[in-house]
Amino acid sequence: MTKQNLNDCYQRIAPYIHKTPVLTSSLVNELVGAEVFFKCENFQKTGAYKMRGATNAIMQLSDEQRVKGVVTHSSGNFAQALSKAAQSLGVKATIVMPSNSPIAKKEGVKTYGGNIIECEPTIEARQSTADKIVEETGGTFIHPSNDLDVILGQGTACYELLQDYPNLDVVACPVGGGGLIAGSALAVHHFSDNTIVIGGEPFEADDAYRSLISGKIESNTTTNTIADGLRTQLGHHNFPIIKDNVNEIIRVTEEDIIEAMRFIWERMKIIIEPSSAVTFAAILREKNKFKGKKIGVIISGGNVDVTNLPFNI
Amino acid sequence: MTKQNLNDCYQRIAPYIHKTPVLTSSLVNELVGAEVFFKCENFQKTGAYKMRGATNAIMQLSDEQRVKGVVTHSSGNFAQALSKAAQSLGVKATIVMPSNSPIAKKEGVKTYGGNIIECEPTIEARQSTADKIVEETGGTFIHPSNDLDVILGQGTACYELLQDYPNLDVVACPVGGGGLIAGSALAVHHFSDNTIVIGGEPFEADDAYRSLISGKIESNTTTNTIADGLRTQLGHHNFPIIKDNVNEIIRVTEEDIIEAMRFIWERMKIIIEPSSAVTFAAILREKNKFKGKKIGVIISGGNVDVTNLPFNI
Repeated sequence: MTKQNLNDCYQRIAPYIHKTPVLTSSLVNELVGAEVFFKCENFQKTGAYKMRGATNAIMQLSDEQRVKGVVTHSSGNFAQALSKAAQSLGVKATIVMPSNSPIAKKEGVKTYGGNIIECEPTIEARQSTADKIVEETGGTFIHPSNDLDVILGQGTACYELLQDYPNLDVVACPVGGGGLIAGSALAVHHFSDNTIVIGGEPFEADDAYRSLISGKIESNTTTNTIADGLRTQLGHHNFPIIKDNVNEIIRVTEEDIIEAMRFIWERMKIIIEPSSAVTFAAILREKNKFKGKKIGVIISGGNVDVTNLPFNI
Repeated sequence: MTKQNLNDCYQRIAPYIHKTPVLTSSLVNELVGAEVFFKCENFQKTGAYKMRGATNAIMQLSDEQRVKGVVTHSSGNFAQALSKAAQSLGVKATIVMPSNSPIAKKEGVKTYGGNIIECEPTIEARQSTADKIVEETGGTFIHPSNDLDVILGQGTACYELLQDYPNLDVVACPVGGGGLIAGSALAVHHFSDNTIVIGGEPFEADDAYRSLISGKIESNTTTNTIADGLRTQLGHHNFPIIKDNVNEIIRVTEEDIIEAMRFIWERMKIIIEPSSAVTFAAILREKNKFKGKKIGVIISGGNVDVTNLPFNI
């Protein structure tokens, strides 16, 4: 995907998204020994960067496709993002959600006008239920991360960051399905010459880390992580982009994630979700690598269940 | 205090404080039926507006006074603010804290170099211990709210807000000791012709509400509120300013406070403390009064114990 593709994508979706603020903290900078610029997608519509890719994917559909609606399966942020993006664009969205999805997430989807179809809580049931809806309605299936239009849209967060801070040494973001890091890597590739891209990933869901080492897509052996947004599997559209443009993926423990999340909550007074804390945890874990650098950190989202937090320890 | 006093105060303290951002939320605006501008003092140094008044009070001391240090009693945000302000200005701060103060607050004071003297957890012990230190050291006692230089400093949050948003119909903030609302009322008085000032106060600590009605300083009969910053008593320096310049104080229940706090956390993704939620709760409680208005809401702080939140209900 070209520089022009990314420029066009940004112009296309800009009226439907927030240009999110970039925050800094002298305490964070002292702790890391570097300058950290937090791109706050937790302040994005629906509370996560997913709004960007969802909007772009729907806007790339033909009029005929739009009439038939869009379909996805997601129990997380993409479910709400696709619902909201579809609502903004006057398109019908059907969201396949596992029957055990948190009520708060289902309520979020309903708020944004998404039509929920429940399925058994297995990967197979999610895909087969979505396939069936596509067959019945003629709607277009949009994958939460393994889709080039989605990837391009997600890249606009980093695009905005680089417009405001063109001299970053490092851009860092979490790695789940790979949509955000692949999009960010494209933005860096096209818009910044001397910036490297770093990913953060839990040890408990380290498919991307192992894929980068082996050179082929590896599967998660566990997904037992508090970073619920990162339990997903790397896709074949994302991996080649990541392989070519991402320097390193740093893995973190569950304790690292909780500690980093708590630090950001307590010191910066912003609510970030565990998946977002993974990136800051990765930088803290290997902070000697980042001494004196200018680091852009994409805070991917802020959707947490405030009645069930990991701090009571 | 004059317009010039406030201008001078702002110029004086500006290098030592953050100019905090103003955030908006379309969800909030829809809910209230008005335009709400949140002045985010939770992002202020030490996590609360108290940094402003503490800095101004210390900067007004003579060189001789500075050498002998400053003294206060506080178990809350002013303890940390005075410590940090003193540290920035090379002045020694002694903080009298009740022995049952939360460890996190004591740690905060230590982080900023404050010297903690513990006392019995009674109002009398706090004042007598502080008096004794003043006598022994020759230090200057600085009251957390009932002090004209502190009031002037606190007013600079509203001063900044009015610089950025000169057409507000309403400025609203919480009322505890009265430093913030008195300072805000002065800023409105001098810098905005058509703006009214509204206070928010818990039913459980409604001394200011009752004082406005009776025309003289009333005492709290209870202080059994989650809004820990508002358990304090209105002072004789604050009350005359409030009486002349504040239109109304709206009281809220504990449930109102928790609900408003949760809404801001979940929808705006920022951490605000219960005392700050009181103001938004007051606006929600009487939202018919505010239809179509432009309302500046001062978010006073974001210091909460994340291991002990009120949402598990």
